[in-house]
Amino acid sequence: MITSLRNPRIAGVRRLQRRRERRATGRTAIEGPLLLSEAIEAGITINDVYARSDDEVAAELAATAGREVTKVSDDVLAGMASSVNPRGPVTIITIPGGDRQVAGIDSLVLWDIADPGNAGTMIRTAAAFGFQVLATKGTVDLWSPKVLRAAVGGHFRTTLVEGLPADVAPLAAAGLTAMVATADGAPANDVRLDGDHPVALLVGNEAHGVPDAIASTGNVQTITLPMPGGSESLNAAVSAGILMYLRMVGRSD
Amino acid sequence: MITSLRNPRIAGVRRLQRRRERRATGRTAIEGPLLLSEAIEAGITINDVYARSDDEVAAELAATAGREVTKVSDDVLAGMASSVNPRGPVTIITIPGGDRQVAGIDSLVLWDIADPGNAGTMIRTAAAFGFQVLATKGTVDLWSPKVLRAAVGGHFRTTLVEGLPADVAPLAAAGLTAMVATADGAPANDVRLDGDHPVALLVGNEAHGVPDAIASTGNVQTITLPMPGGSESLNAAVSAGILMYLRMVGRSD
Repeated sequence: MITSLRNPRIAGVRRLQRRRERRATGRTAIEGPLLLSEAIEAGITINDVYARSDDEVAAELAATAGREVTKVSDDVLAGMASSVNPRGPVTIITIPGGDRQVAGIDSLVLWDIADPGNAGTMIRTAAAFGFQVLATKGTVDLWSPKVLRAAVGGHFRTTLVEGLPADVAPLAAAGLTAMVATADGAPANDVRLDGDHPVALLVGNEAHGVPDAIASTGNVQTITLPMPGGSESLNAAVSAGILMYLRMVGRSD
Repeated sequence: MITSLRNPRIAGVRRLQRRRERRATGRTAIEGPLLLSEAIEAGITINDVYARSDDEVAAELAATAGREVTKVSDDVLAGMASSVNPRGPVTIITIPGGDRQVAGIDSLVLWDIADPGNAGTMIRTAAAFGFQVLATKGTVDLWSPKVLRAAVGGHFRTTLVEGLPADVAPLAAAGLTAMVATADGAPANDVRLDGDHPVALLVGNEAHGVPDAIASTGNVQTITLPMPGGSESLNAAVSAGILMYLRMVGRSD
């Protein structure tokens, strides 16, 4: 059993809390039995599983992936995890490459999204409704433990493409119809969401939205959800969820 | 300028971080200029406004409400606020009584919701789509600063009724048709959401959902949103947002 945070393997895991280290190694850490189970089911490469010595669920899951649990003390587990009072296990996975195919598929575009919880919730919804997820360079790292936790396995059920320029031209060039929710766009009821062309639904930064210079170009369809209650805006993840749902239903009717 | 956290008025504000103190005094604290502006517009009683001496926005807003800013040092402001690096002002408001009218209006029912951010996001959405908000006794205090922050003024644009028993009978007695999103309910497309009867949309605790014993009673209409991506669930606030939107549109068409 590993009992010291200075153990070289443990130190290596702790470094994965930094984005740069995740990029350099192509690995990240996921926490808890649910995410591990989802990762195994999706065929993600499981490298190491760290858990308490009495964690039988972790041992069984690790065995399913052909791995043995590395046992660690409570203190070491707490030092490896990003959550408070972690239950474990902490699992090191290889970040899947994906095929970086932007064209052809309905896409949710995270435009400089700053909050990991918001990003994760949107990945969860996108995966449920059959959208892939694109992210601009200014968006939080989608493979951080916090985003992974909020997405509850969504990362493993859809394609994620990060590092896009904050520009709609590449989306249009890929055949995607860009759409964005704004306060003064076309009423959602009047916008055709059942077209054959795949859409790119832009969701802007929590404080600033999608820049006006982008939203007001002729290439971008603006949409406004009716809000009879006199509100001016919705939470970004809620707004994106409603629009993805409407598109999914329109498409399948 | 107040420079000590031991000042009796400041100590009183800090005690409002506790639910019991909020109940005893009927007051709570809101943070930032946006919430203050929304509260003034909604006619909420503004008791005190605490801000930095150079905060001209706070001074103007306070004047609109017929109040003067009490100037505080940066340290005192930080000690009063629940957010990190607070910008101020911190404003003490009287929690509105509401008319505790459960009948007659489409309602979102927060069923033992534990996360303040989730509760606030759902209040924000409910207010936008014309729903009132009911909450069971087991739900977080809706008037805590964290919930207020996430709701971005939603508290001031709808009615909130807290402390309900975790039971559907009173909802049915009030003429509300109870509905709940579950993994194995009727497809959303098949559920009539345009009826004249007001609905009570139940949203369950993030970990446990609405208890099976409640969801499976004949009085409750179950609804399932289609998820072609193979997911089993959505974030509670996203799911509630989609269902409230569908009800609002169905009702107004």
